[in-house]
Amino acid sequence: MMFLLENLAELTGSALKGDKSVEINAVASLQDAKQGQISFVSNPKYISSLESTNASAVILSPELAQEYSGNALINSDPYLTFAKVLNIIYKKQKLNGFIHPSASVAEDVNIAADVNIAANVIIESGVTIEKDTQIGAGSYIGEGSHIQQNVIINPNVTLYSDTKIGRDCIIHSGVVIGSDGFGFAPTKDKSWYKIPQIGNVILKKDVEVGANCTIDRAALGSTIIGEGVKLDCQIHIGHNVTIDDFSIMAAGSVVGGSTSIGKRCQIGGASAISGHLEIADDVVITGKSMVIKSIKSGGVYSSGIPSDANNKWRRNAARFRHLDEMAKTIKELEKKLNIKTTKSE
Amino acid sequence: MMFLLENLAELTGSALKGDKSVEINAVASLQDAKQGQISFVSNPKYISSLESTNASAVILSPELAQEYSGNALINSDPYLTFAKVLNIIYKKQKLNGFIHPSASVAEDVNIAADVNIAANVIIESGVTIEKDTQIGAGSYIGEGSHIQQNVIINPNVTLYSDTKIGRDCIIHSGVVIGSDGFGFAPTKDKSWYKIPQIGNVILKKDVEVGANCTIDRAALGSTIIGEGVKLDCQIHIGHNVTIDDFSIMAAGSVVGGSTSIGKRCQIGGASAISGHLEIADDVVITGKSMVIKSIKSGGVYSSGIPSDANNKWRRNAARFRHLDEMAKTIKELEKKLNIKTTKSE
Amino acid sequence: MMFLLENLAELTGSALKGDKSVEINAVASLQDAKQGQISFVSNPKYISSLESTNASAVILSPELAQEYSGNALINSDPYLTFAKVLNIIYKKQKLNGFIHPSASVAEDVNIAADVNIAANVIIESGVTIEKDTQIGAGSYIGEGSHIQQNVIINPNVTLYSDTKIGRDCIIHSGVVIGSDGFGFAPTKDKSWYKIPQIGNVILKKDVEVGANCTIDRAALGSTIIGEGVKLDCQIHIGHNVTIDDFSIMAAGSVVGGSTSIGKRCQIGGASAISGHLEIADDVVITGKSMVIKSIKSGGVYSSGIPSDANNKWRRNAARFRHLDEMAKTIKELEKKLNIKTTKSE
Repeated sequence: MMFLLENLAELTGSALKGDKSVEINAVASLQDAKQGQISFVSNPKYISSLESTNASAVILSPELAQEYSGNALINSDPYLTFAKVLNIIYKKQKLNGFIHPSASVAEDVNIAADVNIAANVIIESGVTIEKDTQIGAGSYIGEGSHIQQNVIINPNVTLYSDTKIGRDCIIHSGVVIGSDGFGFAPTKDKSWYKIPQIGNVILKKDVEVGANCTIDRAALGSTIIGEGVKLDCQIHIGHNVTIDDFSIMAAGSVVGGSTSIGKRCQIGGASAISGHLEIADDVVITGKSMVIKSIKSGGVYSSGIPSDANNKWRRNAARFRHLDEMAKTIKELEKKLNIKTTKSE
Repeated sequence: MMFLLENLAELTGSALKGDKSVEINAVASLQDAKQGQISFVSNPKYISSLESTNASAVILSPELAQEYSGNALINSDPYLTFAKVLNIIYKKQKLNGFIHPSASVAEDVNIAADVNIAANVIIESGVTIEKDTQIGAGSYIGEGSHIQQNVIINPNVTLYSDTKIGRDCIIHSGVVIGSDGFGFAPTKDKSWYKIPQIGNVILKKDVEVGANCTIDRAALGSTIIGEGVKLDCQIHIGHNVTIDDFSIMAAGSVVGGSTSIGKRCQIGGASAISGHLEIADDVVITGKSMVIKSIKSGGVYSSGIPSDANNKWRRNAARFRHLDEMAKTIKELEKKLNIKTTKSE
Repeated sequence: MMFLLENLAELTGSALKGDKSVEINAVASLQDAKQGQISFVSNPKYISSLESTNASAVILSPELAQEYSGNALINSDPYLTFAKVLNIIYKKQKLNGFIHPSASVAEDVNIAADVNIAANVIIESGVTIEKDTQIGAGSYIGEGSHIQQNVIINPNVTLYSDTKIGRDCIIHSGVVIGSDGFGFAPTKDKSWYKIPQIGNVILKKDVEVGANCTIDRAALGSTIIGEGVKLDCQIHIGHNVTIDDFSIMAAGSVVGGSTSIGKRCQIGGASAISGHLEIADDVVITGKSMVIKSIKSGGVYSSGIPSDANNKWRRNAARFRHLDEMAKTIKELEKKLNIKTTKSE
């Protein structure tokens, strides 16, 4: 869609500099932008690209705007303003209630009139789907599931029975929600006896779930993903986990069963959080961390050994196997020299 | 289904205390349970919830049963008994041989009369499916595959050609079995020449494979998953791997090609086991471990650095880069002081 | 297909020893091979199996050929020759342009005459598919995507809109290409505002993508996977990542957004590479590494702590939490003894 720069200023609550009636119909990076496109700078190190951009307008902070003579939207948060402009220009299309003839929809379902259902979708018995929601091709909506309004289910998603999806959620392709939790009772003969998983999964509103994530149903009760939670791709959430509102988790992380994660946490990619832990509100866990104990207060937590040249790493990793002995030796040396420097053990 | 408490006692080999004819039709946690529901306690720390539960009966150990005056099933293994009760109450429905009209089934297949085949299933040429098995919506069963009796293939599973699935297996959604192993020969021009992967994957009986796992076919021969093996979600098993009977692996682990894992092993989540290793029977590997050498005897093995406050971690991780030098300095100091405490290097 | 040994010698540029007209119709390992099958030895430790093999011929290096009296193809690179023989014998079938009646193909597409489209495939508006390409059952090809010639899309693959797939690529089942990158702007109320991801994904020629990988579309511009890149299963590639030609990555690795990886890199499995890094050409990163800084020159890099017996690991990992203090104590001791051995801090 095409907008005048003054429209975008008004819609995003930004100040305007330059030609208020320049026409904008797309967004691009400073380097790629052509006439009719708007770009943005939030990081001062890209100022140099400002000179040479062909963008018809640029979104800038008040400070940077002083150094730019072209058309600009001026806002104290250029990145957020950029996001808002994207959402204005690339607006979701209005749905029209089209149900592809190849979709298999059970008879006793409750589907709002404008819901779009793509090819090869399967909707089982007892499902409710509210207005403004779209179900992508090949997706499977299990028995008794309830999807609220304005949800996007992308192609090839699988929702097991009784899954609850709050309004404004986005579920990416390959996601599986509601699969059985990993619950087995050991037996005397060393085999594993399956514990049927009879709970479900609840996503509150405005959750985004990245491609190929898996969220297991609870053994009993519910696995709960809070409001505004954002999960990157290939994350696994175990059964009976709770993730509280506005927490965010990067790709490839794993959360063990029954763990609860507080509000506004930020979990780096490829992290592993053991089961049965409690992570407080406002905890930041850096990437590839190994969390095996509860974290009781907000703050930044880390683990792991960053990469190093292999020959150095090999020598250091070999020494790690003797770290306890090294520590004891240091104590011996301190004793011998009659000094005490180590503060704790 | 509804059962009398005395029926459940008999079916699970448990003793009974209280009203033998109380009716039970569901299972719930102590807190959530209502009339008609049975609950359980295996962990003594939940005893306090026993007082206030509305469950019509509770599964307890003989010790705990002494402290509870309500209706109870008494068994030395309450957790396993609870699992058995779940399986009794939430019994799998009898199949009826329904084949959804949207399923695409090749002509030269051998499918037992009671097998259920859901919408959009594709069954290729030469497939055999034995009785009591169900194939979930959108799943793909590749040419020549053989699925034994009483198997559950959930929706959106992909089996490449020649996959063998033993009886009583459960395959969750998004699983891919039989994809090409990662085999490439280096060439002189630094490109990679694909080694066609002409083997297959064999799952023995009673295997469960969690959502979005991938199990690659062998280059030659078979990738083999033993009897009673349980794989959590998002696990990757490389080509020509063998996992022996009753081993269990938590979510997000990766096993490199040609590795063999023994019987009754327990592998924690987010672990990585390199290719071409041998892991003995009865090995327990804790979560997020990095296994790069064969493990020759049973026992518990671990690796990794648990998370710590970021400022502490940063200082310690920086020192790790100089651990070898630190060890050498300690040796110098020992020599200087003429003592010898370090036992090994 | 059946070949004479002399045909295989000619087609692979190998020398021949023994009966040039022996018939070969399959490939197997030395142990499993029967009459009519060819095998290979590249690792001298398997020489002993040479004696007892029933293979009709064996692929050998010139050195090993001297010790073997049977029929042989002799080549300085037996492994690559073996791969070539596999490709000759198990040749991809010629396509015939069959489009399964259950496929949903938009009207305004451009599909070459011989392209095979399997059951339940969905092809959206504006898609181009070039000759010799096949689309596996249940796969979804999003609007405006372009798939070049001789590509194999296996069953249940999802390509979001505008995905570009170069010639000779192989995409395995469960792969999702073009899902939204993980981009959110923080807001004052601590919620996350979605940045629409309007870029796409480009795979150059001869790329293989393993089962259940995810490759996110760029925020702006393109996520680019270079020529000849091979990705194992369950890898995640973030938005705006670039992987240059002939790099290879093992299973379960994660690459954060906007990182660029050079040519001919080899990344071990279960590695995590943070976002916004630059990895030089010819970098080898060993498995389960944690890469949080750019790597500026080729070479081998590693990180992590290999597994150890749990009781030893526990003691050593506990000491790691005090490594900085240990280092300081060593310095104190050095000072006290008036020696200086530590080279750096």
